[in-house]
Amino acid sequence: MTRFRLTVEFDGRPFMGWQRQAHGPSVQEAIERAAKAATGETVTLHAAGRTDAGVHGLAMTAHLDVERAITPFRLMEALNALLRPDPVAVLACEEAPDDFHARFSCLGRHYVYRIINRRAPLTHEKGLAWRIAAPLDAEAMHAAAQRLVGRHDFTTFRSAHCQSESPVKTLDRLDVARDGERVTVRASARSFLHHQVRSMVGCLALVGQGKWSADDLRGALEARDRAALGLNAPPDGLFFVRADY
Amino acid sequence: MTRFRLTVEFDGRPFMGWQRQAHGPSVQEAIERAAKAATGETVTLHAAGRTDAGVHGLAMTAHLDVERAITPFRLMEALNALLRPDPVAVLACEEAPDDFHARFSCLGRHYVYRIINRRAPLTHEKGLAWRIAAPLDAEAMHAAAQRLVGRHDFTTFRSAHCQSESPVKTLDRLDVARDGERVTVRASARSFLHHQVRSMVGCLALVGQGKWSADDLRGALEARDRAALGLNAPPDGLFFVRADY
Repeated sequence: MTRFRLTVEFDGRPFMGWQRQAHGPSVQEAIERAAKAATGETVTLHAAGRTDAGVHGLAMTAHLDVERAITPFRLMEALNALLRPDPVAVLACEEAPDDFHARFSCLGRHYVYRIINRRAPLTHEKGLAWRIAAPLDAEAMHAAAQRLVGRHDFTTFRSAHCQSESPVKTLDRLDVARDGERVTVRASARSFLHHQVRSMVGCLALVGQGKWSADDLRGALEARDRAALGLNAPPDGLFFVRADY
Repeated sequence: MTRFRLTVEFDGRPFMGWQRQAHGPSVQEAIERAAKAATGETVTLHAAGRTDAGVHGLAMTAHLDVERAITPFRLMEALNALLRPDPVAVLACEEAPDDFHARFSCLGRHYVYRIINRRAPLTHEKGLAWRIAAPLDAEAMHAAAQRLVGRHDFTTFRSAHCQSESPVKTLDRLDVARDGERVTVRASARSFLHHQVRSMVGCLALVGQGKWSADDLRGALEARDRAALGLNAPPDGLFFVRADY
């Protein structure tokens, strides 16, 4: 048995999410199907994060175990050939120690959320960014975001479907920066609650439009109540960037 | 009559090209149809460049004349609303002098060609870049590209369908730069021949793979013969960046 560590890029638009679902296509299912065709074995894929429908991946880490002898390069090439035409690509494949676990060994997760701040609809990036027509004050968003950094009970920013044991998480980074019409939010933590990044970005968008103050954002956090959430951002702009081990 | 200058972004994937065609959808037709719905008038759109099928636009300049009174802002909003779901967006709209002509007043045209240099297939950027699996030497490509800069007979890099009166053009800039797996080619000139950028990029890709030397590229130019062309790059990676006036 050899454990392989994969680095996966995917376009979330056609998928119901990363995780295998009964009712529609998933990234996990696409890769497991390709792996079965490549090796003849029924494999289970484990990933650093389980992204929602419509959320994208730039370099998701995952692992799987294969019994038959195959080199990492040949496995990667076979998976990429068999994954077509699904918008999923294996960027890297390497042997990993038997105790490596893409989910449980992960020490840090990084997301980026792309906002395009303009009146005109999106063309090339439709489904790959959140278009916000009203002008956003990115500096105010960044300043307010710092009120969420640190160890907190993030119940307000947690989906009702979240399976995490505790709502207490440590947010290491939440940066907002503007480059022309692009406003980019970068979030890093050891782990996130379900919908946490999208919920934080949604509320930051309210701050950026002047509808919420930094104190309103802090108040929403301290309410520890999903009903205090201002807005959940759409999945379109969210990308899982990478996992640290 | 008011002349309006439009700045247009479009995703070329679903179109047969910018110019109105008998056999399929075009960007020009989409905008003219929206303009007719917005104004009740049959308008003709003129553009700085006529891009091929599958080629994209970041900020194409175009103009049209409208008889009825309408503000630039209202025209832009109406066009964007009526263009949906086509991936065409009017980024800016302003009144222009009657002697402004998007094509004939244009003093400079800028293109970018995006190459992604990796083995893995594309996901988010499928159709928006040219994936080249073999390693490319971007520095060698840049050095060779300088042999094409200047005033030359570009017959080798000209499509058989080119309608330009003369094959002699002045290429002001042809830069190649790498950023990680991305190799970006930037081309600027007062005007280009049909297929010129794609033909130059195709031959630069041969240089990047070590199949052609800089002398081979120069020899192809000097041959003034389409048969000397090494490779025509696919439309996927080509973007019309902007026009100067």
